[in-house]
Amino acid sequence: MTDAVQRHDPSVRGFASDNYAGVHPEILEAIALANGGHQPAYGDDVYTEHLREVFGRHFGPQAEPYPVFNGTGANVVGLQAMTERWESVICAETAHIHVDECGAPEKVAGLKLLTVPTPDGKLTPELIETQAWGWGDQHRAQPRVVSITQSTELGTLYTPEEIRAIVACTRAHGMSLHMDGSRLANAAATLGVPLGALTEGVDVLSYGGTKNGLIFGEAVVVLNPAAVRGVMYLRKAAMQLASKMRFTAVQFEALLSGDLWLRNASHANAMARRLADAVGGSVRISRPVQANAVFAILPREVAERLQKDFRFYTWNEGTGEVRWMTSFDTTAEDVDAFAAAIVAETGGSGR
Amino acid sequence: MTDAVQRHDPSVRGFASDNYAGVHPEILEAIALANGGHQPAYGDDVYTEHLREVFGRHFGPQAEPYPVFNGTGANVVGLQAMTERWESVICAETAHIHVDECGAPEKVAGLKLLTVPTPDGKLTPELIETQAWGWGDQHRAQPRVVSITQSTELGTLYTPEEIRAIVACTRAHGMSLHMDGSRLANAAATLGVPLGALTEGVDVLSYGGTKNGLIFGEAVVVLNPAAVRGVMYLRKAAMQLASKMRFTAVQFEALLSGDLWLRNASHANAMARRLADAVGGSVRISRPVQANAVFAILPREVAERLQKDFRFYTWNEGTGEVRWMTSFDTTAEDVDAFAAAIVAETGGSGR
Amino acid sequence: MTDAVQRHDPSVRGFASDNYAGVHPEILEAIALANGGHQPAYGDDVYTEHLREVFGRHFGPQAEPYPVFNGTGANVVGLQAMTERWESVICAETAHIHVDECGAPEKVAGLKLLTVPTPDGKLTPELIETQAWGWGDQHRAQPRVVSITQSTELGTLYTPEEIRAIVACTRAHGMSLHMDGSRLANAAATLGVPLGALTEGVDVLSYGGTKNGLIFGEAVVVLNPAAVRGVMYLRKAAMQLASKMRFTAVQFEALLSGDLWLRNASHANAMARRLADAVGGSVRISRPVQANAVFAILPREVAERLQKDFRFYTWNEGTGEVRWMTSFDTTAEDVDAFAAAIVAETGGSGR
Amino acid sequence: MTDAVQRHDPSVRGFASDNYAGVHPEILEAIALANGGHQPAYGDDVYTEHLREVFGRHFGPQAEPYPVFNGTGANVVGLQAMTERWESVICAETAHIHVDECGAPEKVAGLKLLTVPTPDGKLTPELIETQAWGWGDQHRAQPRVVSITQSTELGTLYTPEEIRAIVACTRAHGMSLHMDGSRLANAAATLGVPLGALTEGVDVLSYGGTKNGLIFGEAVVVLNPAAVRGVMYLRKAAMQLASKMRFTAVQFEALLSGDLWLRNASHANAMARRLADAVGGSVRISRPVQANAVFAILPREVAERLQKDFRFYTWNEGTGEVRWMTSFDTTAEDVDAFAAAIVAETGGSGR
Repeated sequence: MTDAVQRHDPSVRGFASDNYAGVHPEILEAIALANGGHQPAYGDDVYTEHLREVFGRHFGPQAEPYPVFNGTGANVVGLQAMTERWESVICAETAHIHVDECGAPEKVAGLKLLTVPTPDGKLTPELIETQAWGWGDQHRAQPRVVSITQSTELGTLYTPEEIRAIVACTRAHGMSLHMDGSRLANAAATLGVPLGALTEGVDVLSYGGTKNGLIFGEAVVVLNPAAVRGVMYLRKAAMQLASKMRFTAVQFEALLSGDLWLRNASHANAMARRLADAVGGSVRISRPVQANAVFAILPREVAERLQKDFRFYTWNEGTGEVRWMTSFDTTAEDVDAFAAAIVAETGGSGR
Repeated sequence: MTDAVQRHDPSVRGFASDNYAGVHPEILEAIALANGGHQPAYGDDVYTEHLREVFGRHFGPQAEPYPVFNGTGANVVGLQAMTERWESVICAETAHIHVDECGAPEKVAGLKLLTVPTPDGKLTPELIETQAWGWGDQHRAQPRVVSITQSTELGTLYTPEEIRAIVACTRAHGMSLHMDGSRLANAAATLGVPLGALTEGVDVLSYGGTKNGLIFGEAVVVLNPAAVRGVMYLRKAAMQLASKMRFTAVQFEALLSGDLWLRNASHANAMARRLADAVGGSVRISRPVQANAVFAILPREVAERLQKDFRFYTWNEGTGEVRWMTSFDTTAEDVDAFAAAIVAETGGSGR
Repeated sequence: MTDAVQRHDPSVRGFASDNYAGVHPEILEAIALANGGHQPAYGDDVYTEHLREVFGRHFGPQAEPYPVFNGTGANVVGLQAMTERWESVICAETAHIHVDECGAPEKVAGLKLLTVPTPDGKLTPELIETQAWGWGDQHRAQPRVVSITQSTELGTLYTPEEIRAIVACTRAHGMSLHMDGSRLANAAATLGVPLGALTEGVDVLSYGGTKNGLIFGEAVVVLNPAAVRGVMYLRKAAMQLASKMRFTAVQFEALLSGDLWLRNASHANAMARRLADAVGGSVRISRPVQANAVFAILPREVAERLQKDFRFYTWNEGTGEVRWMTSFDTTAEDVDAFAAAIVAETGGSGR
Repeated sequence: MTDAVQRHDPSVRGFASDNYAGVHPEILEAIALANGGHQPAYGDDVYTEHLREVFGRHFGPQAEPYPVFNGTGANVVGLQAMTERWESVICAETAHIHVDECGAPEKVAGLKLLTVPTPDGKLTPELIETQAWGWGDQHRAQPRVVSITQSTELGTLYTPEEIRAIVACTRAHGMSLHMDGSRLANAAATLGVPLGALTEGVDVLSYGGTKNGLIFGEAVVVLNPAAVRGVMYLRKAAMQLASKMRFTAVQFEALLSGDLWLRNASHANAMARRLADAVGGSVRISRPVQANAVFAILPREVAERLQKDFRFYTWNEGTGEVRWMTSFDTTAEDVDAFAAAIVAETGGSGR
């Protein structure tokens, strides 16, 4: 009988972030299954051993998964493994690695990020070219990796064709391709394709579990072993090596060996779609709704009134853009109540 | 119904490491309690908020806990918060930060470690003095922090008196004191003192949960806020900020708000004591047994035969020293069976 | 009698860079003066001691000069001294620290640069505001320093009024101001003001000597001691501490205790002006000519023909923009011959 | 006519350091030869181009010299080029890289140094073995380079045989060998062998010029190109790329294309020998005198009295060991006067 006490109301959900959600019950079950007895630490356990098969099912037999704690960890370990000390990474100006990691790539790995403004959070070959130059110039941190986020920080996604074009551009320059896939499942769910269909030509993937229902856990998935060096050491030195790794591993098994990843992602996406559809007549939806995020423009006072009852973030103070995220546990009732409030606050029309 | 399957025998335990153990059932219960509904991410949840009270009960109201993922993370975040870019850390040659972190302090934080050989894993004022010099000399990375491990990597512990002497030495030089307390609970259990009795004068503590029954989780506990800067940012930049932090926090609540920490540590210690007592007539116990580790000298062939049935590590190939760790879930039967095997293999005598 | 032999034609000069020039004869004289006998190393010599007075004459008695080897060194040492480990620097997209230092700020100091596109290489309060936000947000590397270059990498300069506005903006946000003054002398010469008139409110200055006639040598000049910590140690750890520092120091004495800095800079500026005036009817001068650089648009084939006889760099392959730099040793004859060639190649008209 | 003034007495020399000496006149001549006209910056000049031949004469045609500013810079650039991000360096506890570089290897390169106590500043295969282990263990920063100093920080030197033994040990473990040769010339002069006789099997050499008569300047000399990656970029990112590199290069030409290196080193060594011989009957010489340093034991009050007239450093306050360095410009009269004072102060006997 634990001494901890429940301090929150488990029936309350909001639209602030898919990180605000808890853990999917099947994940907790899996953790319980892996508990009891002793297993070697630091990844030498039977659950971690099995992960190669789990990820291989989606990404091919050459895929090498290295579980880590969180997304920043996955990104920084992966990018280090792909670069020499003097190399740099091309990414969108809105990329999580640039905006939301408190400088971890620079600070931990000494990486220079060459950022590119984009209209929708997505790089294109043309945009990549603006920074893909200067090889052999000792004054320039040598561009070595392109990093894209799928689905993006703006709720948009890359089609397989778009990714192929980026792969071609990247390879033409002798660079490698990194994908921040903290919401890769959402992109695959929307597109109705296997996960692996979105990673052809990707060299290293940060595969996200936390936003899709885990307690914690991401994985550096090496899709092209020739593109990396020293992942094992870099993970440890980046403080991303869990001692009781069996519990990270078994969560991924629960997520990926069946269709939990897809159920969770599809549901979250559907809830975003439902929300956008319900309010689209009343507010301006400012970005394509392609995953589990809805961006909209709201007058500030409307946003503030809504935020009294529903948690969500203002994305851009200047433009009044707000972000609504759905997650695996968002219910249709949650959405409908929120949508009704939005419509009511905006006077039933509003666009 | 999870798609994960149980892949190990939960009735098998060994003596390799307290990291090989699983999760205490009360911890799993606590996680379930904190599940459901939405809670703010990145530490703004009610469970993390409550942690100040949880840790304050043991370490005083000024104590500021910052949950992180693992012990290396706690050490590197804490040491960075205590140092300027050009400063260095004095530690024992056997310290985990020197031996077992793949250079994370150097690589992530640029920290120079000034290591000191010790007979028993413990620093003393005299040993500290061998490196505590050179302030004002621009050629020397300025000594700023002394780091000690309690209980030590060699299974020994510091008494409160010994810590007081180190505090005095450290302060006399204007340095700060860091304690790697990944097994602080074991030391307190042996000494029969509160946790806080072992941290008087300590500026920053890495408090360990994983080895004491958590899934994962350590905490940087700032005991002297004047000794640190920027912990919040350093944690994020060190990739140690969990998004669903409520689940880290509630584990610490379950561990520390009652006596689970003490039950677990006392039991592990008792099992080590039981093992040492049972085999002490047959093998040479090479270190004082003061926590949950037993070190002994074994002929290599004996060690190898034993390792066929019982997991444990050889500590020093040269001397034949082996390490046996017990944990919260080690049973008296586990110990007795292992002891019997040791006695049998060593011919019932052996010293 | 030296074993080295002269391998170049000392009568040939070009327009590629002020770094292509040699050493001013008065500087060589000064080095000879400081030679002979022994002097303490690492800055404890009488010449370095005297530097405080030398720089104080220009920048006020509180100014603390720390000689270093080169401009990248000065920038990285200064920026480190102004920042905590988790802080970031706002600069123009064209800043030398971003473009031409092979990632040294990121790699050596872990600094994140928040870059801003500008029309002319110059930051303004409005441009700074686009990145000056997010304090207290643990996910954002905290903006702490604004870095401007005077004169800029595009040959433009900040007026004292413009600098004052930036100082006000920077202070309003509690940030510090860094100036990369590798060509500060050129700006002062053009504006006809003392050096110190351009550094009011600047906290740390990288003062450039190399481009103004030294063999090597820049100085981190701390104008506001309250804005920095640990410069002495950071210089050493950044490998910028010269052992025989008397020879760096005496060069600065020769440059700054009389008017050599102004003679050299004024001459270089005049040569740039002369060149721009001579060719302005034939080619489009693409940037204001405010220091010792002339930017112009040339058809590629014209540029290539000219480059057979005169060294200069193409700045932008896409637009055909070229850069012509003058230096302290550029002669009027050099300029006239080059101008004549340009006019001839462009058909005497061309714009 | 320079505005700088002579501020020191060029007839006064001491025994504090070979860094206290000035510049050899032939070096100044060489600098004057290279002056005038324009030459490409950053190493694309004819003097730097010629360096390959200059160094090749001593170290073989495969040797690639990369001039840098100082010894710390040479060491840190070289060691980075030899290591991956997660690797470590074995060195003597007295190594300059450990003791005198303010943590630059750790801070700039994230390198972990695995230090070994030695009796005389020299590593041996046996001593190397104490740290040469743990490959494949993700918890250990992987040992990759052995770094030795020739001649050592204690004035001792490695014979070619001793170096061969270290080479064999290093290679047997798949490691590389780095030599800090800031006083390599002194070792070669004592042994009467070519410089290259001391670098057989060495992969990367830091070749020192400053202590042998240059204004400034060291070189990373890559002896085994297969052992390094990215030296050019690492030099720039380490802020060690001189813009007017012709002046660094021509100094090395003056030093190495004839016998200036040998004349300077031999003279300095002879002066150390002369000093040791003159005082050996009066004080205890505490280290073998094999280069240009003499270590001796002096009562503290004797040392203090001598230091009123002669500059030298106390090496070890505890033991009373002092260090006397000679340099290329030390005269026999300097030595004789100093020796006479020592003998007088110690009562003409003293051992």
